[in-house]
Formats: sequence, C-alpha cells, structure tokens
Amino acid sequence: MIKPIIGSIDFIESLRGKKATFMLALSNTKTANIEGITQAGIPGMIHLTPTLDSEFLCIGEVRSLENIAETPKGVPTPALITRGVHLLAPFGRIELLDLGLEVKPRLNYFKLHSFDIEPSQSIAKGADIDAEAIFQKGVKFGQNYRCQDEYIILGESVPSGTTTAMATAIGLNYKVDNAFSSSFKDIPHDIRQKTLKLALSNLEERDDIFDVLSKLSDNMLIFNAGFILGLNNRVPLILAGGTQMACVLLIVNRMLQLMGGTMSTSNLALCTTKWVAKDENSNIKALLELLKFPINAYYSDFDFTLSSHSALSLYDQGEAKEGVGAGGALMYGFLNGLTKEKITQKVEFFLK
Amino acid sequence: MIKPIIGSIDFIESLRGKKATFMLALSNTKTANIEGITQAGIPGMIHLTPTLDSEFLCIGEVRSLENIAETPKGVPTPALITRGVHLLAPFGRIELLDLGLEVKPRLNYFKLHSFDIEPSQSIAKGADIDAEAIFQKGVKFGQNYRCQDEYIILGESVPSGTTTAMATAIGLNYKVDNAFSSSFKDIPHDIRQKTLKLALSNLEERDDIFDVLSKLSDNMLIFNAGFILGLNNRVPLILAGGTQMACVLLIVNRMLQLMGGTMSTSNLALCTTKWVAKDENSNIKALLELLKFPINAYYSDFDFTLSSHSALSLYDQGEAKEGVGAGGALMYGFLNGLTKEKITQKVEFFLK
Repeated sequence: MIKPIIGSIDFIESLRGKKATFMLALSNTKTANIEGITQAGIPGMIHLTPTLDSEFLCIGEVRSLENIAETPKGVPTPALITRGVHLLAPFGRIELLDLGLEVKPRLNYFKLHSFDIEPSQSIAKGADIDAEAIFQKGVKFGQNYRCQDEYIILGESVPSGTTTAMATAIGLNYKVDNAFSSSFKDIPHDIRQKTLKLALSNLEERDDIFDVLSKLSDNMLIFNAGFILGLNNRVPLILAGGTQMACVLLIVNRMLQLMGGTMSTSNLALCTTKWVAKDENSNIKALLELLKFPINAYYSDFDFTLSSHSALSLYDQGEAKEGVGAGGALMYGFLNGLTKEKITQKVEFFLK
Repeated sequence: MIKPIIGSIDFIESLRGKKATFMLALSNTKTANIEGITQAGIPGMIHLTPTLDSEFLCIGEVRSLENIAETPKGVPTPALITRGVHLLAPFGRIELLDLGLEVKPRLNYFKLHSFDIEPSQSIAKGADIDAEAIFQKGVKFGQNYRCQDEYIILGESVPSGTTTAMATAIGLNYKVDNAFSSSFKDIPHDIRQKTLKLALSNLEERDDIFDVLSKLSDNMLIFNAGFILGLNNRVPLILAGGTQMACVLLIVNRMLQLMGGTMSTSNLALCTTKWVAKDENSNIKALLELLKFPINAYYSDFDFTLSSHSALSLYDQGEAKEGVGAGGALMYGFLNGLTKEKITQKVEFFLK
C-alpha cells in the first residue's frame, strides 16, 4: 500500500505497472566524521557507506569491504530493502551519480555519472562547497538527461545527510524545529545542536543563497535541487527519501522565490518510508507544507512486523528509517505487484 | 540465482529488469541421422526437432507433428523451460533464424529470418557447407540487425549439434578432450568417435579455416560466428547455450587470430544451464578458457529438485541438459523476478 502524506494518490497510481530508472545519488561530507552524529555505517568507515550501498544494490555483494554497511547497533543498511525489491520487481536500470565519493564503487557495466565533484568538508568548518558550480552541474544534467524508462526514482546515500539537510533549511530561513529526521531513534541532540551552532556561526549577513549552501549543505542536496529545476517537470520524478529529499525541495522552493520563477511540479513527488512518515521525532509533513508549490508526497506502508529477525525489528523501533531510496523502492515494488510478505522474505534472505 | 563460470557478475546484473529479444537459431545437419548419435528428438523424426521447438516456444503448441519432441527415454525438450519463462516473464519478442531447416515451422506473425540456407550434410560425409557464404550472411545480418529490445538472447536448436561442435573445435586445432557435452547422460562414445574419425578423415593439409568449417561444422556454428563479428559488440548479446555456443566463440576466436583482428567483447556473454555447468562428462569452462579474448560466462542455478515429475528429474540425472536457449531463458526469468518455484510449476503444467 502507498499512502499520501500530502496531495492525492492519483499521481503515484498513474505510474502503476510502469518501469522506472532507479538513480542513486552518492556523496560524502566530512560532517559524517563528527563522532556520534550518524549511525549510517561502520564506525571509522562511515565514508564507505555510499560506496558499499551502491555495490550491494547493483550486484548483490560488497567489494570495497568484507561486510555490508551495518550500524553499531547492528541495523542493516536500507540497501537490503532496495536490492530486495530490485530482485523481485526489477527496475528498468540502475544509474549512479558520483556527487563526491571518497571511494568509487568497484563496478563494471553500471552507469556511473561523474561530475568531477569532490567530497565536501564538515559543515562545522564551513563545508567549502562551490555551491553554484554544483548547482549548475545538476541543472545541466537535468536538462540533458534522457530517461530510458517511464519515470525516475531518485534515492540517496549520504551519511550524516539529515544533519546537513537541517543546517541547510535553517540557513535558508525556514522554521524547521524538530522536523528533521535522523538515522538514530534517539537523535543525538547535543552533538547535532553543537554541530549546527558551529555551522551557522560561519554565516555572514551578506551571504546569498549560494553562500549559504556552500557553508551548510552537502553536494547531494545542491546537485539534486539543480537537477529538479533542469529536468523541469519533463519526466516523472520520485524523490525517494525522507527529510533530506524534503530539504532538496526546500532549496528548489527558495531558488524559485529568489529568481521570481515558477515551475510546474505535476510530475514531481516525494516518497518515503513509513518509519519516516510516522516518526515522532521528526515531521516531514511540516517540511513539505513550507513549499509554495503543490507537491504530492507519499509513504510506503511497509514495516518488518512480519519478520522475527531482530536486526530488522530495529527498523520498527525507529532506527535507520530510510536511505538508498528504500521508501521509493518499496513504492515501486507495490506498484509492480509485490506484497509485504514477499519483500520481507527477500530481505530476510540476505541476512541468512 | 545466476552464477559466474568465468568473468564477473556485473555484466549480467546490469541487464536485470531489461527486456530482451529472444532469437532462436534453427538448423538441421544430416549428422543427426546417424543412429544413436543424439537423443534430441523422436527417433526417425529427429530432423523435426528445431521446427517443433520453435512452434512450441512461440505459440505453446506443435503443428508439424502431434506431439512435442521427446527423447526415447522420455526427456521432454528444453523448449518447455524456455516457453515456461516466456509465459511468466515474457521476452520482448521472439525471432527465428532459419539456418537450414528441413521443415519450416507453421507459424504466422512471428519473424522468421530467412537466409536461403540449406540443411547441411553429415560431417561423416564431409558436410558440404559453403562456409564462407554462410559466414558472410551471418556478418551481414549482425551488421544490419536493429535490436528493438535492450539486448539479445541467442539460443539454438540443432540436433547432434554437440558432435558437429566437437568436430569443429578439433578441426580448428583446439585441444578439447572430453570437453564437449551431449544430450545423453552417457555419451555414446563409440558412435561419436566413429563419426569424428570419419569427419576428420575428410580434412586435407592445405585446408583453410573455411574448408575446415565446410567439412566439420554446421550452419548454426558458422552463421553465429559471423553474426557475433558483424554485431561487433554494438548490442549486448547473451549466447544461450552450452558447449555448442562455446564452439561458436572458438570459431570467432580463430577468425580473429587468422585475420589479426580484435573485437571488444564487453557486451558479449554466454549463459548456460546448471546441468551443463556442473556436468562431469564435459567441461565448458575449459573450452571458454581457450579463448584469447575476455568473456563473461554464467549458469542459471536451476534444477528440477522441486519437482516430483519423473520426466523432469531426468534432467537432474544428466539427460538433455540444454537447448532452445534454456539456460539463457532461465537467466532472463531470474533477472525479471521469477523464482525456481514458479518456473518449476509452469514447466510441470505442460506435462499434465
């Protein structure tokens, strides 16, 4: 089942049965090196998470490390969900976006779009992103992209991305108190607040939108905002993610306001997991309601209540929640005939 | 599950979810009339096997005979497997290549590519193939072929084809002791050896590669070698077969060596059944290791252990093994969400 967060069910239902290209935006920000800020990966090797996620998604094995990314508490990466869906109801193709990876995935044959983008610095130290250049790369990619399937599902793997997303939204003057999610059930407020405070201290009065993004954001957020504007509603696009993808929309929204521009968003939607949609410690709906343009947003009504696997039940307890486009992948599975039972079985199979 | 024989999993994983054209190369060689040399069909009507296989694959019934091709021991044709997959996860289209059929399939609407090729004579009597002309027809077809799906799966139905393949490889000076498979569990070594001896006795010192192919080969082997060279890596191509398809690659390899040419093979792979890959009486891996170019080769990890049907369990005992692109069809099924359970059920249904 797919349920609306805001908007109506029509858009997503119109995609039922159609093939999608699954695009995965990969990026590293050194913000993830701040101790305790994220649990999206193996301590000391958090930077490998997007690399390992993309390997597992594409070929079902990880090559850049012996084991698949797993949090300290043992929460397996949501890449298992996305791969599971791909095995049962395959995407038309998978394409990877290298938006500044420390380590390139060891894959052949899979389309890896490269944009000559470096990993970004920690927002605690000003991030040092050439935001305008990265935004323009996103715009150009969106303008020139030829979709070979009927729509695009765009996921992400960016450790500590909810923190950079929150910083970005605050920097762009949105009121977002407690609206942003975290890979933790219990958000490490002290660490996050301290990081945000440091990050925001780098802002100056005269900063324009690109200055703000340069200091507070990450490559994925900036590039994808450009991508959406460049694509310009030409191809149906599902942002497969939680509050990070909501932040991408907030950037688009602010850009449009500042440029005095408009863009049709009839072909644009966000789809996340139930774990994000029903999260008591964040509020994606509130973020989406800040947008001046209409948007359809959904969640996939999937959880691991059918599983007795303790590592998976951590999701239902509020750990991990989203990533690697899991919410959008589940939506794709449901739109192509899969059931909660089948998906659960397939994900459990990976953990045997 | 799809497993590598040689090479890595990336190529085949990159085709997950994509539609393929299933192409079936059909040919008769009078070698099949040698008593006891093949069990790929009904005794006395072996020549009908490719005709019946193509009818059953395309429309689910046979028109050129009352019953579907079945071996004397009652092993049903692997066309059941390919048809079963096609019912569950349909190919984008099926196209037939008439490379010298005694009897044309009685089909309307299905694309039958004709090349004005006659069935070949028995290799025991020199085969009498105009190898250069057939090779050139393959090259031209490959150069001009426009694939309407994202890749091609190329299967074959050529009774006694493993014997002609073995003769061809020996004639081209490859060391292939016991590497070639057979439709029998217990290869009729006496008959095969006698046939090979007769075939090889037709060779002369001054024979060039086309002379050798003219005397020892079959139309399918020669045409497909030309097809691969003509296609020239332009479209992903899966050779769906066992040691016969390996022999096609050996011909390509020798052609390239003799011409001093090279060809990229990044878009070329072979995919066979588990029955061939794990066969103790043949060695497809050894054949593939003779190639000077890199090649990805896979097998589909499928058997009939989930079936209690005695006719199907003969496959697991080593009879039949491969044909009508069964290994590649199973791969296509797995790449499009099918399970061993579903495929087994569908194949069993045909036998009810």
